[in-house]
Amino acid sequence: MIYLDNSATTKPYKEVLETYLTVSEQYFGNPSSLHTLGLEAEKVLTRSRELIAKLLGVKAKEVIFTSGGTEGNNLAIKGVSLEHQSRGKHIITSVIEHASTYETFAELENKGFDVTYLPVNQTGHVSLDDLKQAIRSDTILVSLIHVNNETGAVQPIQEIGEFLKDYPKVFFHVDHVQGVTKVPVHFKKNNIDLCTISGHKFHGLKGTGALYVREGITLSPMLHGGVQEARLRAGTENVPGIAALAKALRMTIEKAEEGKLNLMQLQQKAIAGLKEINGIVLNSGSGDGHAPHIVNFSIPGAKPEVVIQALSHQQIYVSTKSACSSKLSSPSRILLEMGLGQKRAESAIRISFSYETQDQEVEAFIQVMKKEVPKLLQVMR
Amino acid sequence: MIYLDNSATTKPYKEVLETYLTVSEQYFGNPSSLHTLGLEAEKVLTRSRELIAKLLGVKAKEVIFTSGGTEGNNLAIKGVSLEHQSRGKHIITSVIEHASTYETFAELENKGFDVTYLPVNQTGHVSLDDLKQAIRSDTILVSLIHVNNETGAVQPIQEIGEFLKDYPKVFFHVDHVQGVTKVPVHFKKNNIDLCTISGHKFHGLKGTGALYVREGITLSPMLHGGVQEARLRAGTENVPGIAALAKALRMTIEKAEEGKLNLMQLQQKAIAGLKEINGIVLNSGSGDGHAPHIVNFSIPGAKPEVVIQALSHQQIYVSTKSACSSKLSSPSRILLEMGLGQKRAESAIRISFSYETQDQEVEAFIQVMKKEVPKLLQVMR
Repeated sequence: MIYLDNSATTKPYKEVLETYLTVSEQYFGNPSSLHTLGLEAEKVLTRSRELIAKLLGVKAKEVIFTSGGTEGNNLAIKGVSLEHQSRGKHIITSVIEHASTYETFAELENKGFDVTYLPVNQTGHVSLDDLKQAIRSDTILVSLIHVNNETGAVQPIQEIGEFLKDYPKVFFHVDHVQGVTKVPVHFKKNNIDLCTISGHKFHGLKGTGALYVREGITLSPMLHGGVQEARLRAGTENVPGIAALAKALRMTIEKAEEGKLNLMQLQQKAIAGLKEINGIVLNSGSGDGHAPHIVNFSIPGAKPEVVIQALSHQQIYVSTKSACSSKLSSPSRILLEMGLGQKRAESAIRISFSYETQDQEVEAFIQVMKKEVPKLLQVMR
Repeated sequence: MIYLDNSATTKPYKEVLETYLTVSEQYFGNPSSLHTLGLEAEKVLTRSRELIAKLLGVKAKEVIFTSGGTEGNNLAIKGVSLEHQSRGKHIITSVIEHASTYETFAELENKGFDVTYLPVNQTGHVSLDDLKQAIRSDTILVSLIHVNNETGAVQPIQEIGEFLKDYPKVFFHVDHVQGVTKVPVHFKKNNIDLCTISGHKFHGLKGTGALYVREGITLSPMLHGGVQEARLRAGTENVPGIAALAKALRMTIEKAEEGKLNLMQLQQKAIAGLKEINGIVLNSGSGDGHAPHIVNFSIPGAKPEVVIQALSHQQIYVSTKSACSSKLSSPSRILLEMGLGQKRAESAIRISFSYETQDQEVEAFIQVMKKEVPKLLQVMR
């Protein structure tokens, strides 16, 4: 099996599952319970929060656990917008956000918020100049995806964070789901107020995630009820999942130290190999402004479902666009916004690596592509 | 260890954890992915949904997976209220709801909804007559807890469902979190439109749950993004957690067949034993109108935290009130609403069983109470 769909989800690490199992069996108490079993579960929760905070360079109380990236983005964006709307109803995002941001902004637009969607250039990057022009006295939020999930384009978070220092009343939310552990950002130095991560994107478990909420920021919660998570997210804490999240984050960050060079080499290899194949057009780049774990390309004229099936038969797993949107047969909204045209947008394929991806897997993928693409294109004619 | 806090959370069944592990390792794909791994994960999802639907007597497409009871209650109540507010802004609940319902209604009240909180009598039951008086032409929702989490009082869901048949435009939501597998209700026959369950209350996993949404009902979603869960709940599905939910539900319902008589006997034994102890007042009953797995009593004058600690030292685990509210040192809102007075409301203890609770555990608990309560009361004097 050659799994090249790590941006959709990753295989949980064995050690992560072991942590989940141990906590589920030995610390199964409800952390809100006052007895010893409850206190022990609460300790696991506290230690996990502290570890995650340390790994992200933030304070423990700034980490709010969620059920994943979609909840994190929804909570950050709606939470800030609804809570602070008396100060202004203008909010800014980009045209290349993940559905969980994009649809949330659309929902707020329906509720009377004024939304500016920053455009992107042909490489999929927003510009600081466009943000400068968009920002107004009634702007309360800028929300941007850090690493785009389809193209790997890295937005200029540092530059934008720096610029927003002059706008202390504008909250800055970063969707860091694809970036965390692969393209680190410094939350504090980059002036980030809210930041979303999701466990299953770095060998953690589905249904786990966290939202960084800078100390002092008030949010309108989505889940009302008990007093868990500083009242920002009611509901019994998923203690085993949270402990697994901490474990996965620690393990993956440790692997990142030597793994990043490898990811870049894999990406170079994939790009070089794909460039040699007639009929393939690259939609993503490498080096500065590009994450090392994503390569996006099109085979204009070929249906991406057919390509995926052909590869799937050989146990090679790749994807079309965002997994969350892949069941919609529409062309990629991201590539259209990049101005790459309908043909490329409707025939895009994404491959995505993790620190577990091997050189020979990418090699094998390229070899298969060299055989399959001509066949696929012949069928189309 | 004698664990008598099963209404706060239960220990996951070994088999449930095994299912979780197997699915996490072998079906780790994102069910939205178009390749074989995605399709296999989607099959697990579909089969789990079908099993849960069958066990609950509903259709597969009527089961929406959530991150737990709090999310289920929030989604049902806000989902219906916000979606259908053009028809009316009057919504009805009771004064003895779980925080996840109570606080959600409070939030909607802040947003301009008109809320009627039905009172309860001394046994903690709402009356159909009160509902009849409360209902108006602009009522759009009645939301009631089925089995109260502190007292085990079972609300007359059948009677109310029957009555609401004459009000086809009023949605009926039932918080079935404490009831499911212990006090079954028939969703269809009882005219229930929406019904919340949570996995970790029946030996499933934290962070898992489901909301039954009757076919044809439109809801305003809380989580915007991808097209998962019929667009009612965006985000990558927690496939292993969902498979574990199905497993836990099936196992617990199977155990219920012979376990229910046992629960009733345990409850009788606990009540009889507690009645013999000077200084103890019972707050809950047994038989009709009472769930078999919860006993609530007070030791007026004794601080419940002290009782819990004393029992905890002997590895007996009980609780004060709802786990979700137990860190608030206020008296029980539920007992106050039952008119049991401040003293009883601030000294309440709850024990709660599962089908795994043994006769000798309840016996041991009673024996310890017989020794401890006189000591505790002496200290108070």
